[in-house]
Amino acid sequence: MAKEGEVVEHPHKAFGWAARDSSGFLSPFNFSRRETGEKDVAFKVLYCGICHSDVHMAKNEWGNSVYPLVPGHELVGVVTEVGSKVEKFKVGDKVGVGYIIDSCGSCQNCSENLENYCPKHTVTCGSKYRDGSITYGGYSDSMVADQHFVIRIPHNLPLEAAAPLLCAGITVYSPLRHFGLDKPGLHIGVVGLGGLGHMAVKFAKAFGAYVTVISTSPDKEKEAIQHLGADSFLISRDPNQMQAAVDTLDGIIDTVSASHPLLPLISLLKSQGKLVMVGAVAKPLELPIFSLLTGRKIVAGSLIGGIKETQEMIDFAAEHNVMPEIEVVPIDYVNTAMDRLVKADVKYRFVIDIGNSLKPSL
Amino acid sequence: MAKEGEVVEHPHKAFGWAARDSSGFLSPFNFSRRETGEKDVAFKVLYCGICHSDVHMAKNEWGNSVYPLVPGHELVGVVTEVGSKVEKFKVGDKVGVGYIIDSCGSCQNCSENLENYCPKHTVTCGSKYRDGSITYGGYSDSMVADQHFVIRIPHNLPLEAAAPLLCAGITVYSPLRHFGLDKPGLHIGVVGLGGLGHMAVKFAKAFGAYVTVISTSPDKEKEAIQHLGADSFLISRDPNQMQAAVDTLDGIIDTVSASHPLLPLISLLKSQGKLVMVGAVAKPLELPIFSLLTGRKIVAGSLIGGIKETQEMIDFAAEHNVMPEIEVVPIDYVNTAMDRLVKADVKYRFVIDIGNSLKPSL
Repeated sequence: MAKEGEVVEHPHKAFGWAARDSSGFLSPFNFSRRETGEKDVAFKVLYCGICHSDVHMAKNEWGNSVYPLVPGHELVGVVTEVGSKVEKFKVGDKVGVGYIIDSCGSCQNCSENLENYCPKHTVTCGSKYRDGSITYGGYSDSMVADQHFVIRIPHNLPLEAAAPLLCAGITVYSPLRHFGLDKPGLHIGVVGLGGLGHMAVKFAKAFGAYVTVISTSPDKEKEAIQHLGADSFLISRDPNQMQAAVDTLDGIIDTVSASHPLLPLISLLKSQGKLVMVGAVAKPLELPIFSLLTGRKIVAGSLIGGIKETQEMIDFAAEHNVMPEIEVVPIDYVNTAMDRLVKADVKYRFVIDIGNSLKPSL
Repeated sequence: MAKEGEVVEHPHKAFGWAARDSSGFLSPFNFSRRETGEKDVAFKVLYCGICHSDVHMAKNEWGNSVYPLVPGHELVGVVTEVGSKVEKFKVGDKVGVGYIIDSCGSCQNCSENLENYCPKHTVTCGSKYRDGSITYGGYSDSMVADQHFVIRIPHNLPLEAAAPLLCAGITVYSPLRHFGLDKPGLHIGVVGLGGLGHMAVKFAKAFGAYVTVISTSPDKEKEAIQHLGADSFLISRDPNQMQAAVDTLDGIIDTVSASHPLLPLISLLKSQGKLVMVGAVAKPLELPIFSLLTGRKIVAGSLIGGIKETQEMIDFAAEHNVMPEIEVVPIDYVNTAMDRLVKADVKYRFVIDIGNSLKPSL
């Protein structure tokens, strides 16, 4: 069920593209943003990545979308106004917002900089603020957010490349760090080579790992190795290749959100290896318990990352030149882009050039 | 398929009870033990615990049993002979052997004192030594093992109580330690209240945890709390009780080997909580991935423990008076005991009084 949100008339006019129902079709939409509060940062949006979650939300595939739905949670731009108590940012700064735009601030997770695991966190689009009004995302001309949830974009990072880091980047960076899969010399597997997977390859390489991409598509091998820098490639449907690689991986980042068997992946792990799921697989998967017991292996889940870690990630990306592969498109291409994304027809992330293509309606 | 082992005539006569086929029925059996090698410790067996694995192996339920099968991998006794290069033990010492009696000694796991995860480890009964001869377990009058795999039993620990620690004890102690579930003040769940579960309650309490037992059987509540020292009790089939306990546990030791749903258990975990499976569940269980993602939770497996940790565990048990609840039985009760064990009709571990009841046949 899509939820009803409160359409509130705020002082700042805003403009974007929204889905009105579960068709997910986007079209121009006038709305408003709240006044810049004393701890708020307002910014002009210049680029916004198109994440697969945007498609899920636009079409209400998770059942909790709030319409009208302006997607976009990988948005970057330039600060236009700051509240009186904002000390971290000033007008003209390059900033961004990711998947999370608010959290309770008082729970155990919030106190540990894990706002992403706060049970009361607010997502940047298609949801509701604590006051009941709708959260409109980054397929729009402006944003306002509490400074705590605003990320500083390093100067040497092109803005359009920074956008996808705010969701795709942190989603794979965080588990690599948290589960100790960031040590040089480790052998890391990456399952699936889409928006998340290609960033997992790049971060794992930047950490000094030997990286194996595991994919159903043999035609991705050349790209994975020659272009993205992976060290080896396994076709998951080839039992001989998979058997030969049993007991070789220290950890796996599994980015696939379609149902798929876990046993072949668990078998690739060495003793004490870790299979970390970051794709939101809808149906339960079969877990063979004995395969975990015999090597003290773990299957874990990880969901984006906290704000502090997101800043750390983007600083690391800038320092180590870890950048997503993107296809920049105008806003009026967004419905086509979403269709192509569903068909995995993108290398590897669409980014909407909001600044140059989004024109306010009269 | 049961495997064929090589029945070798060794110099030392031995006597025990063995299953001859997958009926699992045990009866007296004459065999032999190898000469005490230069690094070997030979000991007279005085007590041996009856683990559920003994039943599985006697009946070839895992498909890899080797007959004749003398069960028993929780055996303790007194040293009768030591090899010329044995420095750790002397005649008269109280010792024991657990689930593992040999490993390769050269792999990564062996080098990290994790012989239990060595892919070439040899189990104490129903399997084969590296030379192809059969491993006969502790339902017998004597044992000989490399000193590396022999555990010293602390003086203040009654031998009959020490026996179940060598498998049931270490199987729950190891994951509590390894997964950081051994910190005072943590809230630990224990699923299932059998041989493993009751030891998990005792070790978790000894570590200073608040312990909740989760069981299908309401009639175990009084016993769990009043006798074993658990702090609270949840009936897993009562949705209201389970719902009220959502998001309260730091970790769970799941000892149940029958198929059971994981989602209700994962839901009991706080963010970053850990569900550790120690029961050898035969069929794959359904794993809802999203339930892991939303709290960075993990499902892990753990299998007994390494030799060094087993010594540490038994020293800890002696120091903190952590002892299993046992029912001591004579060897000629062993078939009845196994039947009762299958029906979970034991509190909580049978231990065979080998020393006083096993009489050699003529």
